[in-house]
Amino acid sequence: MIELALIGIGTGNPDHVTAQAIEAMNAADLIMIPVKGPEKTELAELRRTLLTTYLKNPETRVVEFDLPVRDAVTTSYGATVADWHGAIAEAWETVISDTLDPGTPGRVALLIWGDPMLYDSSLRIAGILGRRIPLRPRVIPGITAIQALCAAHAIPLNEVGAPVVISTGRQLRDHGWPDGAETVVVMLDGECSFRTLEPEGIHIWWGGCVSMPQERLVAGALSDVGAKIVAVREELRARNGWVMDIYLLRRMSRKP
Amino acid sequence: MIELALIGIGTGNPDHVTAQAIEAMNAADLIMIPVKGPEKTELAELRRTLLTTYLKNPETRVVEFDLPVRDAVTTSYGATVADWHGAIAEAWETVISDTLDPGTPGRVALLIWGDPMLYDSSLRIAGILGRRIPLRPRVIPGITAIQALCAAHAIPLNEVGAPVVISTGRQLRDHGWPDGAETVVVMLDGECSFRTLEPEGIHIWWGGCVSMPQERLVAGALSDVGAKIVAVREELRARNGWVMDIYLLRRMSRKP
Ligand SMILES: C[S@@+](CC[C@H](N)C(=O)[O-])C[C@H]1O[C@@H](n2cnc3c(N)ncnc32)[C@H](O)[C@@H]1O
Ligand SMILES: C[S@@+](CC[C@H](N)C(=O)[O-])C[C@H]1O[C@@H](n2cnc3c(N)ncnc32)[C@H](O)[C@@H]1O
Repeated sequence: MIELALIGIGTGNPDHVTAQAIEAMNAADLIMIPVKGPEKTELAELRRTLLTTYLKNPETRVVEFDLPVRDAVTTSYGATVADWHGAIAEAWETVISDTLDPGTPGRVALLIWGDPMLYDSSLRIAGILGRRIPLRPRVIPGITAIQALCAAHAIPLNEVGAPVVISTGRQLRDHGWPDGAETVVVMLDGECSFRTLEPEGIHIWWGGCVSMPQERLVAGALSDVGAKIVAVREELRARNGWVMDIYLLRRMSRKP
Repeated sequence: MIELALIGIGTGNPDHVTAQAIEAMNAADLIMIPVKGPEKTELAELRRTLLTTYLKNPETRVVEFDLPVRDAVTTSYGATVADWHGAIAEAWETVISDTLDPGTPGRVALLIWGDPMLYDSSLRIAGILGRRIPLRPRVIPGITAIQALCAAHAIPLNEVGAPVVISTGRQLRDHGWPDGAETVVVMLDGECSFRTLEPEGIHIWWGGCVSMPQERLVAGALSDVGAKIVAVREELRARNGWVMDIYLLRRMSRKP
């Protein structure tokens, strides 16, 4: 039986790591590090810092492996996201069987951006692998981009006793403002989809590369700061070659 | 200028504390510990463990104070939640001025259950106090009950690319299943409000005292496990004198 620890490591600030995450790194026989595919520079950087600072167990093997590239898998005839996840499960399986003694129990770990529960496919891939080899997933929560955003702006996520919708750029573009919502957090947005909304009465708290040295924050009435956000986001992207951003939108029916 | 650090400490597991939270505790001149009012046994316990384990700075003063009791404030004529928050802000101000040298800058900290952004009033109270004394709030994120729940069940929060609604027991009772939602997380529910839903097609992942030694988890089709959850919750409450619970509901339009 393999224990597969999915270790949430936060979204850029190494100080957001938890005591439990540090413990799990040091308890692992094998930490698998994907080096190609959807991996991004920032994750590589944070991971390096965390392992250098916190991994003290000389027995823990850190093994890099090539992650299947999504486009290469999913553009082939009939292939889907599920096929891509299947290919990743196979890559994990190969690393595990190449590294650990076959048939003996082992502790394997992956370092996951933010928290494994939030817009991340590792748990689903672990589910696929679990149908092939005896596997017990273990989740170690980590600080998410939503928390990093709210902390950076020092704002509450919710209005008093009110609901919150967590959503994506695509959802916002395709379906508009969610029915009945007062607060919407938008992630996975490559194109500043807030521009598709009628800005009247909406306040935005935006963050690019939150929790990282490059962090940029903008907040204000959407009608006032929307264009500025587009510009700051483009500036970050141009300077780093990539950008990740997240924002909270609130309808100011009550008060700011 | 006072820096007021709102330090998220997770929801019961001392290992969920972050490196940043430990640093902030040790950087504080004053940690204010409310000992009456809405404070509950479990928070007192976790706080004690954290301070004993992690607070190494002998200069940090830990000061207990009586928090105004909500009912006593809000049942008086015309009083509101805002008045209660005002009373708490005054209590904070008194502790600060009694402990720190007047007029000198100081670092004050509060240990907040979970993350300060999520269904917590400390940021609003800090806002009130900030109108009376020069105050800069600083938020240190912590693992929320939502993350603790998902980690304990080893489940993702969202379906692939789909939105999630975070809400309360009262909202669920008053407004039913949120329009267009596939996944709903329910907090602040004193009365198993999932019972007000038509259970057909709904799956539930429930947790009581998640991340604590008493933790209990139940998952399944709502029609199958609803009654069991009510019983387990009551068992926990009877044994401890209190219970906190949280659950994730998913409409199984797709697959489990
Ligand atoms: C694939 S999801 C992973 C989320 C992650 N599991 C978490 O817990 O935050 C990636 C999205 O998270 C958001 N995100 C992650 N890290 C971020 C950061 N440091 N700054 C801004 N947004 C970030 C962006 O919206 C990005 O598109
Ligand atoms: C006032 S809110 C505070 C939430 C906290 N700030 C957080 O980040 O999770 C309290 C609610 O959180 C949930 N909760 C907090 N701790 C919990 C725990 N250990 N187990 C289950 N639910 C918990 C319950 O729904 C409870 O009613």
